[in-house]
Amino acid sequence: PDEPPRSDALPSVSSLECLINDQQTVQCLKAAGTDGQVYMPFDFIQNYFEVYGKMKHYDGYDRFEFQQSYAKVIYNPKVPYSYTGVFMTFDSYNVEARDRVKCISGITGVPLSTQWHIQGYYYGIQIAQFGMSHYSKELVQRPPTKQVYENAEDSIQVISIPLGSGAALILGNTIEHILSFDLKMITNGSLSVVLETNDKLKQYTIHYITSNIVIDFDHKSNIYYGLGASRHWRHIARDLLTDLKKGIGLTDTRQAKKVRINILKVARLTVRGSGFIDNITLSTSEHLSQFHDASQWIYLNQDEETGGWKNEVERRLEGYKPIPAGWISAMGQGQGMSVLSRAYHVFQNPKYIVALSQAMLPFTKFPHEGGVRAVFMDKYTWYEEYPTEPASFVLNGFMYSLIGLYDFKALLEDKFESYELVTRLYDDGMTSLKAMLPLYDGGSRTFYDLRHFMVQMPPNIARWDYHTTHISQLVLLYSVTKDPVFKKYIDSWTGYLNGKVAKHN
Amino acid sequence: PDEPPRSDALPSVSSLECLINDQQTVQCLKAAGTDGQVYMPFDFIQNYFEVYGKMKHYDGYDRFEFQQSYAKVIYNPKVPYSYTGVFMTFDSYNVEARDRVKCISGITGVPLSTQWHIQGYYYGIQIAQFGMSHYSKELVQRPPTKQVYENAEDSIQVISIPLGSGAALILGNTIEHILSFDLKMITNGSLSVVLETNDKLKQYTIHYITSNIVIDFDHKSNIYYGLGASRHWRHIARDLLTDLKKGIGLTDTRQAKKVRINILKVARLTVRGSGFIDNITLSTSEHLSQFHDASQWIYLNQDEETGGWKNEVERRLEGYKPIPAGWISAMGQGQGMSVLSRAYHVFQNPKYIVALSQAMLPFTKFPHEGGVRAVFMDKYTWYEEYPTEPASFVLNGFMYSLIGLYDFKALLEDKFESYELVTRLYDDGMTSLKAMLPLYDGGSRTFYDLRHFMVQMPPNIARWDYHTTHISQLVLLYSVTKDPVFKKYIDSWTGYLNGKVAKHN
Repeated sequence: PDEPPRSDALPSVSSLECLINDQQTVQCLKAAGTDGQVYMPFDFIQNYFEVYGKMKHYDGYDRFEFQQSYAKVIYNPKVPYSYTGVFMTFDSYNVEARDRVKCISGITGVPLSTQWHIQGYYYGIQIAQFGMSHYSKELVQRPPTKQVYENAEDSIQVISIPLGSGAALILGNTIEHILSFDLKMITNGSLSVVLETNDKLKQYTIHYITSNIVIDFDHKSNIYYGLGASRHWRHIARDLLTDLKKGIGLTDTRQAKKVRINILKVARLTVRGSGFIDNITLSTSEHLSQFHDASQWIYLNQDEETGGWKNEVERRLEGYKPIPAGWISAMGQGQGMSVLSRAYHVFQNPKYIVALSQAMLPFTKFPHEGGVRAVFMDKYTWYEEYPTEPASFVLNGFMYSLIGLYDFKALLEDKFESYELVTRLYDDGMTSLKAMLPLYDGGSRTFYDLRHFMVQMPPNIARWDYHTTHISQLVLLYSVTKDPVFKKYIDSWTGYLNGKVAKHN
Repeated sequence: PDEPPRSDALPSVSSLECLINDQQTVQCLKAAGTDGQVYMPFDFIQNYFEVYGKMKHYDGYDRFEFQQSYAKVIYNPKVPYSYTGVFMTFDSYNVEARDRVKCISGITGVPLSTQWHIQGYYYGIQIAQFGMSHYSKELVQRPPTKQVYENAEDSIQVISIPLGSGAALILGNTIEHILSFDLKMITNGSLSVVLETNDKLKQYTIHYITSNIVIDFDHKSNIYYGLGASRHWRHIARDLLTDLKKGIGLTDTRQAKKVRINILKVARLTVRGSGFIDNITLSTSEHLSQFHDASQWIYLNQDEETGGWKNEVERRLEGYKPIPAGWISAMGQGQGMSVLSRAYHVFQNPKYIVALSQAMLPFTKFPHEGGVRAVFMDKYTWYEEYPTEPASFVLNGFMYSLIGLYDFKALLEDKFESYELVTRLYDDGMTSLKAMLPLYDGGSRTFYDLRHFMVQMPPNIARWDYHTTHISQLVLLYSVTKDPVFKKYIDSWTGYLNGKVAKHN
């Protein structure tokens, strides 16, 4: 009798030319038989449709995993969003690790951006996001492990130790990479930390020095951060791994990635110069300290006259004339307000309420007056991430501005009483958002802005991480409003991530 | 020495499971080797991405042909569009063959629609398109072959022959399927044509009878069309193949398609009753005759009070309350105007100018006043294909209305003098069109309307034939305006047909 075909026999296929839109050919496969299925190579599919896929190796078998989009975490709060709580999905953000963050300044404790200018500059939105990521991590992460070193000798009551010339403290921590201390300098001096790493060089030393340099690297093993020239007591918290990576990465950001450097041990600390140091601590996190640095920067760098956080770099958007340095962003105002609302919640300092009130001013002014306000078709009030003329109606920036307004509004209603201006700004914006959401719906993706309508360009499709940001923002707004309009867009836009598209007629 | 692998060796592949968006699995193939290409089955690709493909067999080889869209003819005029010329791509239209055309009425000579009502009703837009397709075919097709039969005996001077009771005329035409004649009935009677066909039944007889029935079929071989009860001289032109197909198709439209029935010979004609018949002709086309029937219907069926062609069926659009019967469409007005402009050009009867002037009235009135006017965001004047409230802003219908206005405007400027109302309606509409085109641009497809913005639905994606209509309409408007805005959208929207999509950020 004939042997039945073996079920694990290799499929029988032949090569087949495939003509794509009468324009190019691609080599495909065709299964044997007259009605044999045609198979197209994934290289072509990936490129033509811009989808994603990779081979995954499981125990005993391989599987190819296809994705319409590079799915990102979408905000999914268990309780409604609150101005005292986690900010969206920012607990998963690692702002300092971004390529476009030059480093965390030793003087201010906040990131310096290179996004639009190679030199590095303070970018309010980035600083706010840095602050809120640490605030959110503080809420969701387990408490840190901590080790407190008073000084190199035994000493219990001494709360400050004079800085010697080269006094060394043996540390030896392998898990805790956040160094913090209180410092008051009398002369110039430095604090150097020796790190053992998995890099072939093995040892790096980070020098924190009383100087105004930002960051430097001798291309061997010494990294320098300026702490400024302050002679007052300061609390300083440094993420040694970030400082190490940014130092090495100065020459080549790709290198730092490639090395995937890690700290094996925080070996020792040496102090030089005259002054006082106290509470030398190594811990796994110092999120509130970093949040404090961010909120301080935001508080101190608000422009007195305008209430804005000015962006001191020129901004170019395709289709528009450049926006000269000094512009204010509704997103920056909103994110700043979200930080300040939390800062008030944590630190209870009324100065933050004053700053919050000031931060609303740009919402009342049009770009030619230095503000962020726009009106769509003479009807819908909008707050502009980029104060272009004509307006550009960037969606995610607008929603961040609404969330900032919401935070201040909620804080006021919670602790004081409602305040007409913030309520009106928020309500007007929400009305516009609900009416205009459909204009960002492309049927299979979302639009980043309304540039196509304003300056007649092709639609500026939002890349998938902005798309998921849109959804997360709507989730946040839905959690506090329960407005079904938001639910509708959350559902259909989430579908787009999995290739579900709007119907055609 | 080893034999090199044969180049025509079958590719070596194995089966591979592929997980799609974490939701379903599809069997793929993987080429041999660790970095072997993954191949996905076209059945999945076609369904998931809604693309098209088929195996084509050429002399000596097979090729698989992949298409992003089902490409349709796009208007590509050699000279700028004119109100006297071909209407867009309508020379390729075959309105009478559409499933939703019940038949061509023997009384009016124009199609009866079943699109929104199974009984059959006159639908102005369909009649206009029927007229313009024949007008356009007349311009582009070769002159017909024609055979004129005066009567059954030899007779030269006799211009009318009395209808006997069963007088038969032997015809025998195999190519010419359009029967035309002049008729004046005195009593009731009929004119029957025997057709030899490729159907297994072989012979069908179409009876044109002095009655008001629309169409009937005895389910054997007799088809009936009513010619009405007119006692005046009339010119009648009948497309026998269409009449045959619609007759058989009465019971089952699919059957008529399946049979793919064709006329092998127009065998003979029998006349019964008293009256006069003249100019019995068989020809390959009678386009001007059919255009005349359409323009007559349009002229005669314009509502005196409103100037509109009223649609006597209720219309339902998803997301809106139903529009009760009696509504007027800007598209209908525009298409009617395009017909009447050509009718004036051909027949030079000033009554058509009067009708054209009347046809503008609905453009000046809002839906609650019985008109077609809408305004987008209190700024952009629009003419509505469907007079919904709120407005729906159907793009293709709007552009047809602009083309109709253009035709009348061009005719007036050509033959008489410019006229303020038509110029203003056209100019206002063109301003809106240029400003609002971006709102229909989805980045990879176009939207049919703005329902998503007006009633907060998912975007109503235009199927590919509406998409190509959008492009053809823009080509037409570009040919007469040379406005670069149109060129920009023609180019990018044509790209969508081949999978070229807007960039993401």
